[in-house]
Amino acid sequence: MGNTFGHLFRITTFGESHGGGVGVVIDGCPPQLEISEAEIQQDLDRRRPGQSKITTPRKETDTCEIVSGVFNGKTLGTPITILVRNKDARSQDYDEMALKYRPSHADATYDAKYGIRNYQGGGRSSARETIGRVAAGAIAKKILHQVAGVEIVGYVKRIQDIEASLDPNQVTLAAVESNIVRCPNADLAEQMIERIEQIRKEGDSIGGIVECVARQVPKGLGSPVFDKLEADLAKGALSLPASKGFEIGSGFAGTLLTGSQHNDEFYTDASGNLRTRTNRSGGTQGGISNGENIIIRVAFKPTATIRKVQNTVDQRGQATQLEGKGRHDPCVVPRAVPMVEAMMALVLCDHLLRQTAQCDVLK
Amino acid sequence: MGNTFGHLFRITTFGESHGGGVGVVIDGCPPQLEISEAEIQQDLDRRRPGQSKITTPRKETDTCEIVSGVFNGKTLGTPITILVRNKDARSQDYDEMALKYRPSHADATYDAKYGIRNYQGGGRSSARETIGRVAAGAIAKKILHQVAGVEIVGYVKRIQDIEASLDPNQVTLAAVESNIVRCPNADLAEQMIERIEQIRKEGDSIGGIVECVARQVPKGLGSPVFDKLEADLAKGALSLPASKGFEIGSGFAGTLLTGSQHNDEFYTDASGNLRTRTNRSGGTQGGISNGENIIIRVAFKPTATIRKVQNTVDQRGQATQLEGKGRHDPCVVPRAVPMVEAMMALVLCDHLLRQTAQCDVLK
Amino acid sequence: MGNTFGHLFRITTFGESHGGGVGVVIDGCPPQLEISEAEIQQDLDRRRPGQSKITTPRKETDTCEIVSGVFNGKTLGTPITILVRNKDARSQDYDEMALKYRPSHADATYDAKYGIRNYQGGGRSSARETIGRVAAGAIAKKILHQVAGVEIVGYVKRIQDIEASLDPNQVTLAAVESNIVRCPNADLAEQMIERIEQIRKEGDSIGGIVECVARQVPKGLGSPVFDKLEADLAKGALSLPASKGFEIGSGFAGTLLTGSQHNDEFYTDASGNLRTRTNRSGGTQGGISNGENIIIRVAFKPTATIRKVQNTVDQRGQATQLEGKGRHDPCVVPRAVPMVEAMMALVLCDHLLRQTAQCDVLK
Amino acid sequence: MGNTFGHLFRITTFGESHGGGVGVVIDGCPPQLEISEAEIQQDLDRRRPGQSKITTPRKETDTCEIVSGVFNGKTLGTPITILVRNKDARSQDYDEMALKYRPSHADATYDAKYGIRNYQGGGRSSARETIGRVAAGAIAKKILHQVAGVEIVGYVKRIQDIEASLDPNQVTLAAVESNIVRCPNADLAEQMIERIEQIRKEGDSIGGIVECVARQVPKGLGSPVFDKLEADLAKGALSLPASKGFEIGSGFAGTLLTGSQHNDEFYTDASGNLRTRTNRSGGTQGGISNGENIIIRVAFKPTATIRKVQNTVDQRGQATQLEGKGRHDPCVVPRAVPMVEAMMALVLCDHLLRQTAQCDVLK
Repeated sequence: MGNTFGHLFRITTFGESHGGGVGVVIDGCPPQLEISEAEIQQDLDRRRPGQSKITTPRKETDTCEIVSGVFNGKTLGTPITILVRNKDARSQDYDEMALKYRPSHADATYDAKYGIRNYQGGGRSSARETIGRVAAGAIAKKILHQVAGVEIVGYVKRIQDIEASLDPNQVTLAAVESNIVRCPNADLAEQMIERIEQIRKEGDSIGGIVECVARQVPKGLGSPVFDKLEADLAKGALSLPASKGFEIGSGFAGTLLTGSQHNDEFYTDASGNLRTRTNRSGGTQGGISNGENIIIRVAFKPTATIRKVQNTVDQRGQATQLEGKGRHDPCVVPRAVPMVEAMMALVLCDHLLRQTAQCDVLK
Repeated sequence: MGNTFGHLFRITTFGESHGGGVGVVIDGCPPQLEISEAEIQQDLDRRRPGQSKITTPRKETDTCEIVSGVFNGKTLGTPITILVRNKDARSQDYDEMALKYRPSHADATYDAKYGIRNYQGGGRSSARETIGRVAAGAIAKKILHQVAGVEIVGYVKRIQDIEASLDPNQVTLAAVESNIVRCPNADLAEQMIERIEQIRKEGDSIGGIVECVARQVPKGLGSPVFDKLEADLAKGALSLPASKGFEIGSGFAGTLLTGSQHNDEFYTDASGNLRTRTNRSGGTQGGISNGENIIIRVAFKPTATIRKVQNTVDQRGQATQLEGKGRHDPCVVPRAVPMVEAMMALVLCDHLLRQTAQCDVLK
Repeated sequence: MGNTFGHLFRITTFGESHGGGVGVVIDGCPPQLEISEAEIQQDLDRRRPGQSKITTPRKETDTCEIVSGVFNGKTLGTPITILVRNKDARSQDYDEMALKYRPSHADATYDAKYGIRNYQGGGRSSARETIGRVAAGAIAKKILHQVAGVEIVGYVKRIQDIEASLDPNQVTLAAVESNIVRCPNADLAEQMIERIEQIRKEGDSIGGIVECVARQVPKGLGSPVFDKLEADLAKGALSLPASKGFEIGSGFAGTLLTGSQHNDEFYTDASGNLRTRTNRSGGTQGGISNGENIIIRVAFKPTATIRKVQNTVDQRGQATQLEGKGRHDPCVVPRAVPMVEAMMALVLCDHLLRQTAQCDVLK
Repeated sequence: MGNTFGHLFRITTFGESHGGGVGVVIDGCPPQLEISEAEIQQDLDRRRPGQSKITTPRKETDTCEIVSGVFNGKTLGTPITILVRNKDARSQDYDEMALKYRPSHADATYDAKYGIRNYQGGGRSSARETIGRVAAGAIAKKILHQVAGVEIVGYVKRIQDIEASLDPNQVTLAAVESNIVRCPNADLAEQMIERIEQIRKEGDSIGGIVECVARQVPKGLGSPVFDKLEADLAKGALSLPASKGFEIGSGFAGTLLTGSQHNDEFYTDASGNLRTRTNRSGGTQGGISNGENIIIRVAFKPTATIRKVQNTVDQRGQATQLEGKGRHDPCVVPRAVPMVEAMMALVLCDHLLRQTAQCDVLK
């Protein structure tokens, strides 16, 4: 329970960071979509550890295998299973962690809930679990692009207090991928990288904010009142490891404005299309997409696992100290970019199918 | 689709702001719980319009009827239906709105999605829809309290830029309800009320932030990886009308700290209970409750419907102007307090049942 | 839990036989469908008690009210709530039943499960619960007819051992409704009515079989492997009160044939349409509709509540005797006809939307 | 969509008969259950092809791998993935079938629905898909046995017209497995085997009936009104390949009795337990288990794929003839026994968890 996301484009992820592997089953994917392992691998490579000097040195190629649901390069409409085997397991790194609870990590809560835990590398609570999401997200992106030309671009908006001022309407994937921190402002990217390297040397960690925009989203996506588009996006975002906050459009800052300042004025553009002059709404009104760009921000806390010595308790409740020994990211935010994109793609693709089902059937 | 929330304690709300009525069906409520219309009415009265000078003057008693699922004052385990009839309908107020799209309201997106809309008072997108949630939330609160002594208290943390510094561990329902703006700091409450009255006179609106705390939450609630407690809380929050942001624990501010500053150190308390010295996690780690207080914040934008003249377009796409005439809240935040409490109660109650199902069955 | 049926055209029924009322919330209904209380009432009138001399004399008009989801005669795409108030409650009839378990009725199992029960008239286990299904089924039928010209016709195939040989491809609603037992063979209908009247005089009850056909069903409906069309039809059928068996196409009798006798030979008809010469498959192959008529049969046991004296125990476990006093049907089968039709319509409509979602989105 | 079964003990199967493999993800399994690949393999071996002279000679060892969710021999409470690789693929056998529709098989409907199909061996419509169900069923059986001592035993009740008269209360697994046709009556088993061999020589196929009993089922399982125990059992049964009918208790034959003949008289047994003297109800009343043995029967049609020449059409709609060449079962019924057991175990285990969630939480 709890490992399925989506209603019509429905994914179930599985796997622990150590053990046979991790992956995803996608149920509800439209048939006859061309898809290859190579396409999926592209997004997995943006997520994988060891991709640059500012990520964990844990080396995993994260090579994916499509086990089912694709035949002669096309989706069958049956469940698509994508499997990534675990490889570089240095489980002896985790012997100490088996006994001592890492502060702000999920060790203690998994024990409290299940009474058992795969203590190697975080088990199910490892960010490695997101491999299945990113793989499924690659397929969702392709559907969205094919059906409606939707473009989804995520990027690092802020690392600790280094914040980039960026126009979400203009950011390109190329600009994002032009540096290892995934901030499309080259100067700030340099500062962010320096900060992360410094923090890594200190054996500490930092967090930041990912912003993600979806462009060319069809009007009408979202299912009030509970499955509003922003509600599902918020759930997707807060289901990611280390996330602590979510905003859409004006977000928390919007609470400082008055209604007359905040409202997005309507107008009809040259093509006769209903548009808004501003986009404080962030692309949805009443939980339904309005055709403007959808803009969200997700806050990621500093990684819980650090090398610095910390006070904690062991599984018997005895006070002790812990010094992290596994290979961990000093900052997950750059690798979180494809995760946020994936969650946005999954939500939008699910609602595209839902909209088709409910509102096109009588046409 | 989209009008059901929860997996085991599952609610389906229905109804438009004008028409026969609004309400909720609750499926999965445990049997033999004592519940009365009077208990439910208490929370509905905290939500209803016309309750004070700073809310909309629209008068609705919002009297609830339990239509099914309760027999001789106890729940039957069968679906509980709670119905509130619509009464004070001055639908002529909405004639203009039938034709003109209110900026940043859901009028245009409902038309884009469904091709039809009950334009009276917002129809399904009205905050009136939340009656069903608040009614169901009252029952969820009672279950949580009865099973584990859980206390859920929401309050206004900020109105526009007037922010109260409050200790979530100490706030009481009595303090919250001691003033009409529902801010437990009396001085700031006064300022907030003044600000809202002033904004109302100007025909404008403002927003703010609701903070909500759950105390005595059992350890182990939450179903990773997608139904993490914070993920479901975020979804619940962002499904509320006018919400634009969600935080748990340290939230966006937590991204400014390092891991060594942010991590919550573990210790064993005098009763041998595993605790954390700080609570930047906000009561969950890895998506599972850790026994500390759960603390969330929800951002509400300024109400879209204002009296001030605004530029917009009509349904045919022609530029026009709109002056709001219905009776609307200058600030929804005080009335949003019981809504946020309700969503938190619904999420916690659902996960309490889920935890019982999965992790108690083999004991 | 357990009171929701369908995935996209999703209904939740509520209500006990005694209490405020019974009804249904339909979520996911396409917008802009013309629908009226009068249309829904037609099917409710075929289901209601007291409609003829062979049904229970309990008089209920079962007048329905559309509480939400319809505006100016058209569906809004928001949840449709239909409510029928309970009226003719002679709850004193049930005083004895409060204490004594009716054999083969749900009294004892509801007590075992919930520890509480509305003992008036069966509470939630009453056939009165099916009002919500029949109301929702009326809307599903209309959608199916409007989109694809689908016709659904149910009828009594057998009462006890009086079995009609009928061609499902030819039966008309008019023929079914031409007599009170709903068997389109007039001679046998007469025999069946006589048998039911005789049984009623004896204070006993009998059962029988309803057959139901859907014609003009589009090819491609059904979602293997678990939501095969026949799987959902079987679930719908066995969720009806008093049902004990389900068949599609050749059913149990088909097990007596060899494959070469049973297989439906394919051919291409004059319009170039792929057809089968026989229809032992009953309209589905591999769980997906093949365009042939869908034909199912549902077995209904004799009503549990009878007037004859029966040995039983009371709630304390003491041996006692029970003589039924409420007003009950000697044979539910004629009133079950619109229930079976409703379940078939709900399943087909749900799968029509599902098919649209998954397989039309890339077209 | 459609590849998930269960609400709390929830399985998603995946895979085609040819391609990377088939398997299942189980979400919601209680933690700390001891489970091994060897235990799961036992049931898979009862299902696998090539196990005896009366099944298809297609040789597959169907060796399972637990990819996730189990650590040091115990379940983690996280998703359990079980994978079986495909091996003995003689895909050239299917070249002809790629073009010609096999009568009464799913070839044509898959093409109609998805517009694409893995034509090798039936693809997703192959009985090979049931591997995932049987594997998950093995775990469900273990939970049921551990929690409540539940025993589930299926067996062949009838092959074509050779029917065994058996007492479901007495049948043992050992008796069932004592012969290759899985009929616990040795004499009739011999006749059945002869019949199947004869039919195989003729290049034809036959069907039959599997009966399955669950003993020691706790009272109170089942969630009216839609998720009645018999409704979910019926859905499970009809989701199996080649199934055409379902009965519980008296089933279709029960319609011939009167209520006074059919009703199960209550009594209190020596231990003070409420029991029924007969069990025409088949272990449920009102959709809820009553503690008596649950008895169901499932009708399986003769296998669609036969060696005999059949008239059909090809994918272009041209009339043609087809002679089956793949290696197929002359009678699936013996191999269907573990499938029916698995579906019953899955349904009961799901409802055991549901009952715990709803009805134990306030205790």
